[in-house]
Amino acid sequence: MKYRELKRQVYEANLELQTRNLVVYTFGNVSQIDRDAGVIAIKPSGVSYADMKADDMVIVDLDNKIVEGSMRPSSDTKTHTHLYRHFADIGGVTHTHSTYATAWAQAKLSIPCLGTTHADFVFGEIPCTAEMSDEQIKRDYEEETGVQITDCFKQRSPNEAPMVIVAGHAPFTWGKDAAKSVYHAVILEEIAKMAYLTRTLNPTGSLLSAAILNKHYQRKHGSGAYYGQSN
Amino acid sequence: MKYRELKRQVYEANLELQTRNLVVYTFGNVSQIDRDAGVIAIKPSGVSYADMKADDMVIVDLDNKIVEGSMRPSSDTKTHTHLYRHFADIGGVTHTHSTYATAWAQAKLSIPCLGTTHADFVFGEIPCTAEMSDEQIKRDYEEETGVQITDCFKQRSPNEAPMVIVAGHAPFTWGKDAAKSVYHAVILEEIAKMAYLTRTLNPTGSLLSAAILNKHYQRKHGSGAYYGQSN
Amino acid sequence: MKYRELKRQVYEANLELQTRNLVVYTFGNVSQIDRDAGVIAIKPSGVSYADMKADDMVIVDLDNKIVEGSMRPSSDTKTHTHLYRHFADIGGVTHTHSTYATAWAQAKLSIPCLGTTHADFVFGEIPCTAEMSDEQIKRDYEEETGVQITDCFKQRSPNEAPMVIVAGHAPFTWGKDAAKSVYHAVILEEIAKMAYLTRTLNPTGSLLSAAILNKHYQRKHGSGAYYGQSN
Amino acid sequence: MKYRELKRQVYEANLELQTRNLVVYTFGNVSQIDRDAGVIAIKPSGVSYADMKADDMVIVDLDNKIVEGSMRPSSDTKTHTHLYRHFADIGGVTHTHSTYATAWAQAKLSIPCLGTTHADFVFGEIPCTAEMSDEQIKRDYEEETGVQITDCFKQRSPNEAPMVIVAGHAPFTWGKDAAKSVYHAVILEEIAKMAYLTRTLNPTGSLLSAAILNKHYQRKHGSGAYYGQSN
Repeated sequence: MKYRELKRQVYEANLELQTRNLVVYTFGNVSQIDRDAGVIAIKPSGVSYADMKADDMVIVDLDNKIVEGSMRPSSDTKTHTHLYRHFADIGGVTHTHSTYATAWAQAKLSIPCLGTTHADFVFGEIPCTAEMSDEQIKRDYEEETGVQITDCFKQRSPNEAPMVIVAGHAPFTWGKDAAKSVYHAVILEEIAKMAYLTRTLNPTGSLLSAAILNKHYQRKHGSGAYYGQSN
Repeated sequence: MKYRELKRQVYEANLELQTRNLVVYTFGNVSQIDRDAGVIAIKPSGVSYADMKADDMVIVDLDNKIVEGSMRPSSDTKTHTHLYRHFADIGGVTHTHSTYATAWAQAKLSIPCLGTTHADFVFGEIPCTAEMSDEQIKRDYEEETGVQITDCFKQRSPNEAPMVIVAGHAPFTWGKDAAKSVYHAVILEEIAKMAYLTRTLNPTGSLLSAAILNKHYQRKHGSGAYYGQSN
Repeated sequence: MKYRELKRQVYEANLELQTRNLVVYTFGNVSQIDRDAGVIAIKPSGVSYADMKADDMVIVDLDNKIVEGSMRPSSDTKTHTHLYRHFADIGGVTHTHSTYATAWAQAKLSIPCLGTTHADFVFGEIPCTAEMSDEQIKRDYEEETGVQITDCFKQRSPNEAPMVIVAGHAPFTWGKDAAKSVYHAVILEEIAKMAYLTRTLNPTGSLLSAAILNKHYQRKHGSGAYYGQSN
Repeated sequence: MKYRELKRQVYEANLELQTRNLVVYTFGNVSQIDRDAGVIAIKPSGVSYADMKADDMVIVDLDNKIVEGSMRPSSDTKTHTHLYRHFADIGGVTHTHSTYATAWAQAKLSIPCLGTTHADFVFGEIPCTAEMSDEQIKRDYEEETGVQITDCFKQRSPNEAPMVIVAGHAPFTWGKDAAKSVYHAVILEEIAKMAYLTRTLNPTGSLLSAAILNKHYQRKHGSGAYYGQSN
């Protein structure tokens, strides 16, 4: 029962996916890391949200070995652990097939920054990964999905864009804990819907100016941030 | 009362259509077969979901003769029995006019495999039938609707694509029982919506690669499947 | 209290507009005729659904004179009475600004028959009226809106298409009573949405064949109809 | 406790944003002015709707100084006060990132008057502001957002168009009090959705005629208005 609190948080974050209409059936999974213990809790694979209990969350180490739990962890576990190993600051990861974000992923297009809703959360475009090579798929599909994601952040901090869309697949988001990664999944879906509508209404419209992007991102996330009640 | 359990399952599967927002008013119908008895239970024609009781389900044999029940069976009954006669493995059939799947049917386009959400359930495209000839329509419309469907599966197992869209009409889905056929109707509607958004966002975008299609389909349905808790 | 039952039916039909998500705020209005008495009951103008009571329905004769009621009738009353005077078989009329039907009206396009969902209810296209001339607008706007509608049915029975969209405005639907006219408003919105999706997915797609249109319309409405439990 | 009633009205108007599905999380803010006292009440910055209480509303004067309240006011406060200073008749202001209105803002397009739903509330197009210059952004971003808005109304009364969309950002609406400004935010979102659907269905369609625009606007807002129960 060592990981009871970690499991509870991950369980509730997974339920939130359903409350926020980001998933149908068992689609989607959320995890959270305990960096001191070197383990994550993650949703079991293919279990319905109605049947799921907090104790069903599976504890896995960063080499994907099951530490605690009687069920098989999410089939996407290796992608989660890859992200935790490469993004030192993140505490939670969410994967959904939310409709509009997935449409961008299937269109194999990064989501351009078209407005301040986007700029409030992401500094610049939401990247779409490269397509995976046949070789990568054969090697270790879920691990390589993680590689595709981290490759987008070689020149860029994952804190400036806590979300990505995997080409031909769907989004992953992250944050300081499981709840925050779900929060970003909700935000991404809304940004993706707005961007879809904008592009189909005006396919050649210009991006948000760099100055407004910077202003909006910094007023929430910069050193002189003045949005919200803290800082 | 011989078929009480069969009727109950079909009744509940029909109600699920409404719960999942796949139908307005009396649109849609679900059936399930008892292969040993050689009969199916199916929704009565044009009865509202609110008024319907489990005992109203109509028992029909595979020649479309009523075996039990005081109401007229769904006007689409002959399409259902045609599918049961030709697809030996299926146990349930669902017909809806769900919005996005019907839009593809009306556009007379098969749904291309654009992402892993699709690949998780269907190996390759979701076929759109040929249009029906005037001659077929005169002959026996509902039976011929079944012919249009089974013609799509001459070179392909109906297990690899448990769903079809009938040109100018709407979708049919199937599964091991009534509940699973409804499940596939929900999945189809979501895939159809994602594909609509993808195509209107990027009309010339490429399909999912054969390698990822194969990977995703096999990890759920292949002999070495590792998704979910069973196998 | 002579018209209590008529008022109750109209009141409930108006509430159904809200239940079915066809209106925001006070948009929309429903009426029903008592042909023997030569009067209609109609929603009062600009009253919210939450505040409205059955007794607030206004009784108006076919010359638009108030017969009973302390409130001002819907500003669209003259359009309703025009339809009752010209369409001898109808008993109820509904006007909404439902989203997709209104989009077709604003696009000034008739809704082509693209599938069997449409053919189940309407024999052929759902007409969009001509645009109103400046002269008509000055003369008597609401009466002339009725003229625009009845002009679409000079060569065609209003029973074969119990719905129309008024160019630049929004839909009107009708039926044997108020409830049935609301039913047709729900159906129209669904048909309009499917047609929107079909056209934006495949702008050059062909219509439903005349043979299938005829088959579907007749199996529900023809002399040999076999859909539903009656006839 | 001087401003208890003002705070209560603003609190309830803010909650209405959520009830009407115009916001996700803490997006959006509503204010109302007490012209005699020369102060407004406005939502605190970044507080969730679930946690918010009426007493959390912040009282600010028209120079943006906090008069009462322990929390930081909305980061958009300066835009609100700018509007109150320049639009003498308005009593409430609402800012949302509602999906369709924001899509038009991101597309940097004014919403053309395409139908009577629009004409019932706005006389002519719903303006999209100019894009803000880099210099303005540096100067005082939120104040300059107000300038961008009031610049749209140099030749036009803000009463004839109680709404605007800010290029690259999102809508602002106003009215005689906070509740009415939220009402206009709901109406704007519906108009924006209808206009989106109309334009994507028929990109070259014509505007509503000037005569119908005038007729519909005047029957609700002119000196001889006959819509609703008052006047």
